[in-house]
Amino acid sequence: MSEFDLIRDHFSRLGVRRADVSLGVGDDCALLRVPNGSELAVSIDTLVAGVHFFADTDPEGLGHKSLAVSLSDLAAMGAEPSWATLALTVPEADRAWLHAFSRGLGGLAAKYGIELVGGDTTRGPLTISVQVHGLVPQGSAVRRSGAGPGELICVSGTLGDAGLTLRLLEAGEPVSAYLRARLERPTPRVELGRALRGIATAMIDVSDGLAADLGHILDASGVGAEIRLSHLPLGEEVRARVSASADWGLPLASGDDYELCFCIPEEGCAQAAALAEQIGLGVRVVGRTLERAGLRCLLEDGSTWLPRTTGFDHFSDGC
Amino acid sequence: MSEFDLIRDHFSRLGVRRADVSLGVGDDCALLRVPNGSELAVSIDTLVAGVHFFADTDPEGLGHKSLAVSLSDLAAMGAEPSWATLALTVPEADRAWLHAFSRGLGGLAAKYGIELVGGDTTRGPLTISVQVHGLVPQGSAVRRSGAGPGELICVSGTLGDAGLTLRLLEAGEPVSAYLRARLERPTPRVELGRALRGIATAMIDVSDGLAADLGHILDASGVGAEIRLSHLPLGEEVRARVSASADWGLPLASGDDYELCFCIPEEGCAQAAALAEQIGLGVRVVGRTLERAGLRCLLEDGSTWLPRTTGFDHFSDGC
Repeated sequence: MSEFDLIRDHFSRLGVRRADVSLGVGDDCALLRVPNGSELAVSIDTLVAGVHFFADTDPEGLGHKSLAVSLSDLAAMGAEPSWATLALTVPEADRAWLHAFSRGLGGLAAKYGIELVGGDTTRGPLTISVQVHGLVPQGSAVRRSGAGPGELICVSGTLGDAGLTLRLLEAGEPVSAYLRARLERPTPRVELGRALRGIATAMIDVSDGLAADLGHILDASGVGAEIRLSHLPLGEEVRARVSASADWGLPLASGDDYELCFCIPEEGCAQAAALAEQIGLGVRVVGRTLERAGLRCLLEDGSTWLPRTTGFDHFSDGC
Repeated sequence: MSEFDLIRDHFSRLGVRRADVSLGVGDDCALLRVPNGSELAVSIDTLVAGVHFFADTDPEGLGHKSLAVSLSDLAAMGAEPSWATLALTVPEADRAWLHAFSRGLGGLAAKYGIELVGGDTTRGPLTISVQVHGLVPQGSAVRRSGAGPGELICVSGTLGDAGLTLRLLEAGEPVSAYLRARLERPTPRVELGRALRGIATAMIDVSDGLAADLGHILDASGVGAEIRLSHLPLGEEVRARVSASADWGLPLASGDDYELCFCIPEEGCAQAAALAEQIGLGVRVVGRTLERAGLRCLLEDGSTWLPRTTGFDHFSDGC
């Protein structure tokens, strides 16, 4: 068995078997059926060793995360995940590594009812691109552009956990299992995103930090916003760090949390809270959209906190 | 303007605007509409600097080729290209390089009526993954598995040009403009593939060499084949090289030609020839499928030529 066959073997049957796949891995193309009345949502994301993750990262977690970051984009449109493709570039055909990687990716794929329908495996510096495909009833996807002034801005889960973990790892400090999982095995908020169709007016996933990602909603929707920093949902460790340092950049501008940020009219608030509770995921109102452009971050005394950076640009900064 | 904005700018409006794109580049996902009665064909391919191309390759040609190799997969199913996504990893935001790359990719996209609907740009070692999406009437895609015994095996264009070019470049020898274009700007045989729906029983694109790729058809279809080496379609330079060396490995086992290899029942032969002539592309009958498994390559005297290798494995061999 050649190295190539070995690799193909690892990725030929990942995730579930779906009835809407006419032809999966093994031909020139996969053949897929989109039901009448549905739109296809697609997103592709790349993780590069040394830029998005440490080269010695646990491969099972990396397989999980490679799919999770793309699924987070489907979640942010309210789409139902269906299929994935994988473009995997690896320096060598390391059987144990590939096995663990495919277990991580395949496990998450199975959890969300996804079939891996195609891919390409090449030799080179470790680089992983996953494209996800999802289905959404025609016209019901939640875009970034639908927010109006005077709406509530909500955030799921907690912010800054992944950023803190990265800082601790880079400093060689100990990291709790909770924090490590938040960085290495993020949970795409697929159920929440789907539940918010018809309720949220605009939605995005928080991959580059709340300030930058909410900023994309504001730009696309032509509104401004103010958020109350004391309302940001923080885990214990991030809260302690922010209390000690007043460094709101941690929850505002560090990336990789993969929570959802969305806008809802005030009257939708109770319904969104009920849905989040059903799902078992916290959702917090962190601010409000305004007619006036720009994003203001208010401290408890009502003064404005000025961030030194508004986001996390993988290209110019790396990690 | 940040480096990241610079890059995004280059890829935000590539190819054509299509009416079936509800939402293109700029949100968490693209939203696409697949017509009733059509299946979606998808394929993803990766090109890695130093493995699939020389790092100093002309970026416009590289942009062209990045899309062409994926389009060749759509051609091999008989699918009509519709959309593409691009996962581009580059070591730096070199404006001139990005401009030329996007011109090459965008030019080919426009030629085939494709809209670039999404992507991800990251920093790292130069790696390019393109996923193409195409449409094909339900049930009419041409798979690898449909060939029966006693059918004709046909090949479009000429074989071995790209392989010869690579050898010459590696040896530092001069390369004609024709040969260089065959390696750097392959033409995906989209029109021919589409025309062969309902005529070809099995089809594949020749990306790894005829022996390996025809081998995939034979495996998938459960048949064998014999081909007549003297019938292989060769360009002048490859013909001269093979005449001098009797190295049939050049047209049989070098990759990157992106021609189509397909099987047709004998009675479909005239129709296929007429279609190819309309398209202005040569098609040659090179052999015949057999019940007995295996692939035999016959020399003019009827004896069997034994290849030293059956293909070109990017993973184990590189280029």
